[in-house]
Amino acid sequence: MGEPASQLRESMAAIASEIDTAFDALVPRPGDARDQLYDAMRHALIGGGKRMRPLLVKAAARLFHVSEDAALRVGCAIECIHVYSLVHDDLPCMDDDDVRHGKPTVHKAWDEATAVLCGDALHALAFEILSDPATHPDPFVRIELSHELARASGPAGMAGGQMMDLVGEGESFDLPTITRLQQLKTGALIAFCVEAGAILGRLPPEGRAPLRAYARDVGLAFQIADDLLDVEGDAETMGKAARKDEVAGKATFLTLMGIERARAQAHLLVEQAIAHLHGFGAEADLLRAIARYVIERDR
Amino acid sequence: MGEPASQLRESMAAIASEIDTAFDALVPRPGDARDQLYDAMRHALIGGGKRMRPLLVKAAARLFHVSEDAALRVGCAIECIHVYSLVHDDLPCMDDDDVRHGKPTVHKAWDEATAVLCGDALHALAFEILSDPATHPDPFVRIELSHELARASGPAGMAGGQMMDLVGEGESFDLPTITRLQQLKTGALIAFCVEAGAILGRLPPEGRAPLRAYARDVGLAFQIADDLLDVEGDAETMGKAARKDEVAGKATFLTLMGIERARAQAHLLVEQAIAHLHGFGAEADLLRAIARYVIERDR
Repeated sequence: MGEPASQLRESMAAIASEIDTAFDALVPRPGDARDQLYDAMRHALIGGGKRMRPLLVKAAARLFHVSEDAALRVGCAIECIHVYSLVHDDLPCMDDDDVRHGKPTVHKAWDEATAVLCGDALHALAFEILSDPATHPDPFVRIELSHELARASGPAGMAGGQMMDLVGEGESFDLPTITRLQQLKTGALIAFCVEAGAILGRLPPEGRAPLRAYARDVGLAFQIADDLLDVEGDAETMGKAARKDEVAGKATFLTLMGIERARAQAHLLVEQAIAHLHGFGAEADLLRAIARYVIERDR
Repeated sequence: MGEPASQLRESMAAIASEIDTAFDALVPRPGDARDQLYDAMRHALIGGGKRMRPLLVKAAARLFHVSEDAALRVGCAIECIHVYSLVHDDLPCMDDDDVRHGKPTVHKAWDEATAVLCGDALHALAFEILSDPATHPDPFVRIELSHELARASGPAGMAGGQMMDLVGEGESFDLPTITRLQQLKTGALIAFCVEAGAILGRLPPEGRAPLRAYARDVGLAFQIADDLLDVEGDAETMGKAARKDEVAGKATFLTLMGIERARAQAHLLVEQAIAHLHGFGAEADLLRAIARYVIERDR
């Protein structure tokens, strides 16, 4: 069982192109004094990133024979949240990064004020997309998507994890605290990608346990792999600066577990994630392939 | 016809206290490494501002006998958006303000990174509150509220108006462009407050024209009054810096119309706004009183 690596590569290339086309249509330049905002949004949204989150939505939606259009729009909404968080994270007062996806960050290409507004506009756009009847005809589905995305990205999710990360630079967190930090900072949004497939497929919450367990394990494996890439990757392949954590002196999975134990743990999490999908057949192969890719990628 | 000024003062005192109590319950300190985020959110949310937006929701909801709890929750969501925009606006890269509602701004009380995250968390919280079944049992109502709020605050609303404001510092906009700027920057959210009352009351869109006309006129009058306060007000009464526009050399209603014409225009807009409510009886008195207050306030 399992989708060969070449099929995953095709799926990744396809979603990258679909997402770019969708954003091109969703964020048209208005031709007025707001152009700079739209240009910044398009710069941040189009032509960059692995689009792993939209791919996860697509892969989960496939289990329930959801329309590809609906999954793509939800993927765009999640990508808006992910990208806004990158634009704000890159600001001088946060991570102070000059390059993202091989391009200048928004505050370098324009200025800090434009980057703050660009992030804010992308944040609102995510909810505009999700709540639009074009995403799904059933308001129950749209409102559940909106509610879960708000929870995953707010103080009880991504924003809360980023705050922990920020105060963590001055403190030495232990492993349970780092795990909790990562589950909030990146895990909550990754979990929502998979949950969104189930919501679109009208799977009741009580049936979602295996998918949630899959998403939790994949999210943690993804973060450990990110830490490994930060130490072992090179900036050119990654399209962003490497060794940021080490320079910042932050506690990470690596500083707490060591490289070898962390790598073994990431592999274990991926095997576990795949095991949670045992009740699904070949239609879950894309989810299985994504889980494997998470620790095999080089950026 | 008309609510006396003393009744408006009572309504304003009541909403201010209700909003503070609601936020105290909605944003409880978690007692973990996210405390700094929640402290910053509470600092920004509680004990400040006129709460004119939640009062508008309440006043519009009253026309349709909507539950006060529902109107209050929607008012909280809108206030989250309004307050996040203030927290981000106050950043050094934007307006660089040290004081807001007589208290240090979030980036002064903590730091810039916390202010960015605080604004982002409040932004998500707005949609978390609106999409929660506690706001309204009908998902059609909740999703329409969410969609309209996203539109009012995103690139086609508030964020777009802020971008125009930002590029406007280097250009001399004419009156139609300044009007459009203000309709996006502050008018869209004020219009949503009134629209939200109609949505909660299940008034179909085709019946909302008088309320939309009221909101448009009140929003513009509010902005002209703000410009007048910026020139004539003193910083102590306003709880924020005065004469900001003059220092920035921005085109405003005042620089384009002159003080006397601007004041006359604001009065005309308020009379127009009240005239749009002619089809309503005494239940619209609070909306009428708010319209009058908008140009009579001293902060």
